[in-house]
Amino acid sequence: MEYPSKLIERAIQEIAKLPGIGKKTALRLVLHLLKSEESDTTDLASALVELRKNIRYCEKCHNISDHEICRICSSPRRDPSLICVVEDTQNVLAIENTSQFQGIYHVLGGIISPMDGVGPEDLNIPSLIERIKASNGEVKEIILALSPTMEGDTTSFYLSKKLSEYNCRISTIARGVPIGGELEYADEITLGRSIVTRIEYRN
Amino acid sequence: MEYPSKLIERAIQEIAKLPGIGKKTALRLVLHLLKSEESDTTDLASALVELRKNIRYCEKCHNISDHEICRICSSPRRDPSLICVVEDTQNVLAIENTSQFQGIYHVLGGIISPMDGVGPEDLNIPSLIERIKASNGEVKEIILALSPTMEGDTTSFYLSKKLSEYNCRISTIARGVPIGGELEYADEITLGRSIVTRIEYRN
Repeated sequence: MEYPSKLIERAIQEIAKLPGIGKKTALRLVLHLLKSEESDTTDLASALVELRKNIRYCEKCHNISDHEICRICSSPRRDPSLICVVEDTQNVLAIENTSQFQGIYHVLGGIISPMDGVGPEDLNIPSLIERIKASNGEVKEIILALSPTMEGDTTSFYLSKKLSEYNCRISTIARGVPIGGELEYADEITLGRSIVTRIEYRN
Repeated sequence: MEYPSKLIERAIQEIAKLPGIGKKTALRLVLHLLKSEESDTTDLASALVELRKNIRYCEKCHNISDHEICRICSSPRRDPSLICVVEDTQNVLAIENTSQFQGIYHVLGGIISPMDGVGPEDLNIPSLIERIKASNGEVKEIILALSPTMEGDTTSFYLSKKLSEYNCRISTIARGVPIGGELEYADEITLGRSIVTRIEYRN
């Protein structure tokens, strides 16, 4: 498509680099910005640049944080004996939204994915081991909360091997049929797994 | 949702102001920017700010342009006796993509929409009339290429009344069943209209 202006072409190209945004959507966004106040655009631009320049990560769990130690790690109401290992900040937010977890987190910053050239050495694994060692047995359980995909399972397997020498329980989040889902629509792998890993009824 | 950092919260808020982007998508985009090179973010930000600050519009047709008069208006290969009236730049691009139109454009910069507080006085209508007057009869036809919606039809009706006193044909793009579409899936209003405005077969 031939755009009527070099300026608009450049803006569309930059926006279309973002994941899930194509050139048509980029054009729509650009025309929206042109119609709105100039301050809307400058506010957006400065928020992005400041975020990228000044972002900090918690020194303990590697989650995004405004301070050296994040709100969750420094909270006295969280249980430091329970560490939930996740891929990234999005997963922390998702688990926090459930209000079901009172422990603390460890953000790996990715998962092992040979296809994308991500190996164990690219992830925050040494600092996790360091945390467990430094706690002197205070850490009782590590929950591996990684996506139930090939890469997630590979990472979980790698971590479970790596962490087996420390004296703490290692668990993973339950896989099974989603609550509210119809059994007939569950895929066979999930359904099969949920039968094999069935849970005893407690009355 | 409680975000782990004020910086990320502000960036998400600004991105989520864009049309069609919610907070979840905004978070995904922000995390993508954090994972990519810092230059990606600064390039994006500067492209947006420069676009907003330096954008120019063609003095003749009001389309976005790098120069005083846009590429289409200044092309000797375009027919200046045929003016296609459109809502905005996106429509110009869409019509240009068809390669079926050899005339020039007039961009209204919106359509009459009382619900959004947009009246005829907010649109580039006076300059359209001025163009027709100044052409001294050179303009032979005005094609109203507005969306077949309530607002588009209102604007078309308003323009057809306004332009009726000038000695030029006024036409509108054909409405009917889309080419390649199955007849049984066409909505009844479109199908009904396409029967009423049927075209005689020329052999």
